[in-house]
Amino acid sequence: MMKIDVLTLFPEMFPGVFGHSILKRAEETNAASYRVINFREYADNKHQTVDDYPYGGGAGMVLKPQPIFDAVRDITDKSEAKRPRVILMCPQGERYNQRKAEELAREDHLIFICGHYEGYDERIREHVVTDEISIGDFVLTGGELGAMVVIDSVVRLLPGVLGNEQSHMKDSFSTGLLEHPHYTRPADFRGMKVPDVLLSGNHRFIEEWRAKESLRRTFLRRPDLLEEFPLEDEQRKWLEEFKNEKI
Amino acid sequence: MMKIDVLTLFPEMFPGVFGHSILKRAEETNAASYRVINFREYADNKHQTVDDYPYGGGAGMVLKPQPIFDAVRDITDKSEAKRPRVILMCPQGERYNQRKAEELAREDHLIFICGHYEGYDERIREHVVTDEISIGDFVLTGGELGAMVVIDSVVRLLPGVLGNEQSHMKDSFSTGLLEHPHYTRPADFRGMKVPDVLLSGNHRFIEEWRAKESLRRTFLRRPDLLEEFPLEDEQRKWLEEFKNEKI
Repeated sequence: MMKIDVLTLFPEMFPGVFGHSILKRAEETNAASYRVINFREYADNKHQTVDDYPYGGGAGMVLKPQPIFDAVRDITDKSEAKRPRVILMCPQGERYNQRKAEELAREDHLIFICGHYEGYDERIREHVVTDEISIGDFVLTGGELGAMVVIDSVVRLLPGVLGNEQSHMKDSFSTGLLEHPHYTRPADFRGMKVPDVLLSGNHRFIEEWRAKESLRRTFLRRPDLLEEFPLEDEQRKWLEEFKNEKI
Repeated sequence: MMKIDVLTLFPEMFPGVFGHSILKRAEETNAASYRVINFREYADNKHQTVDDYPYGGGAGMVLKPQPIFDAVRDITDKSEAKRPRVILMCPQGERYNQRKAEELAREDHLIFICGHYEGYDERIREHVVTDEISIGDFVLTGGELGAMVVIDSVVRLLPGVLGNEQSHMKDSFSTGLLEHPHYTRPADFRGMKVPDVLLSGNHRFIEEWRAKESLRRTFLRRPDLLEEFPLEDEQRKWLEEFKNEKI
């Protein structure tokens, strides 16, 4: 079972996310277990202060090293994992992607540190953290939403978590191309129609249409994904078509 | 006030996030208001079905057009905004970034559509949606976490939402470089020391150290950010230093 600990000053943000959908199912099937810990409980000063002014001046507060050092040590001392991964959510981190999700899914114990407003004292990065992760180039109020994103993407990769009905999305993503369009009933919805080929029952035509539309969507929306994609002859021909249509 | 509506099949995921921190403060100060709507309520069939098998076969289910069409129409009909933005969270969407957050922060009304497991019937994309957004190249179970991320990053940009104590993080991000390291008390934490310059009280040296470490961190971690960055002479000199150190 994968153990997941989250260190945060806003523990109330988590139960609604951990208690539903796939994350709930993962806990019910013993694939993962979650703990959300307010690291303020580890502050050893009278007022349980977790932040302080930055050395050198400037606006904003900085998270003190002591509460986070001691919280992580307490958790790792009690851990059965050889070396838990200690993940700092921050804008300066490595950009998160599916490869990183697959890497983390092989671990036994993940500890997430979520700051909120404040910066982190650099000694936390240097001496406590094994991974710094950013989910993208945008500014969030805290690390909590990023941690939820990472946890969802990792837990759904654990064996037995996804039912068959859900697993196809992952498969189609892992082809390296964007998904083709999907349609369901009715065939005519208020005058908007499903492409004839999908109603034809001819599976060869349907597969070809899907492969082509998948490539078209990738070409139009995410041409960067094609840069290292091993194109087959037919795909090369289609790409030429798309380029001519675009002109 | 910005109105934010979220269409989802998992409304219970949201109150913990909307009810704390900056999102809560935004609602309390009338900068934003949130509604979470289960679009199953709009299904006009007896069993309130929202998904169905894909035309053309294959695994997985597809969200039917009717419930989402009618939910969005109902909301937009009652909206005071001229044209609410209707945002579909999906892996095929435009990659989210801070520029997009700033764009959305100028709107009066945002409607988020969050699928879960399933694909979307293509007619939803074509006829209902104004924006398709992906928060990154990783697979999530549903659009809910992505919507929370977008909402947090947008709402914190609304006038009056951020206090002074929080706003500095954004400022330092918007320089185009990663932040320099931060330190707070104690100056010696279990033998790990704060750099002398930050204790010196010499503000010119401190500013120079910060500017240099900010550039160093960007060079080491995110050299892509430097490609279009307008370097000053001193920064160019520092970069040469870093490159020589690396060899």
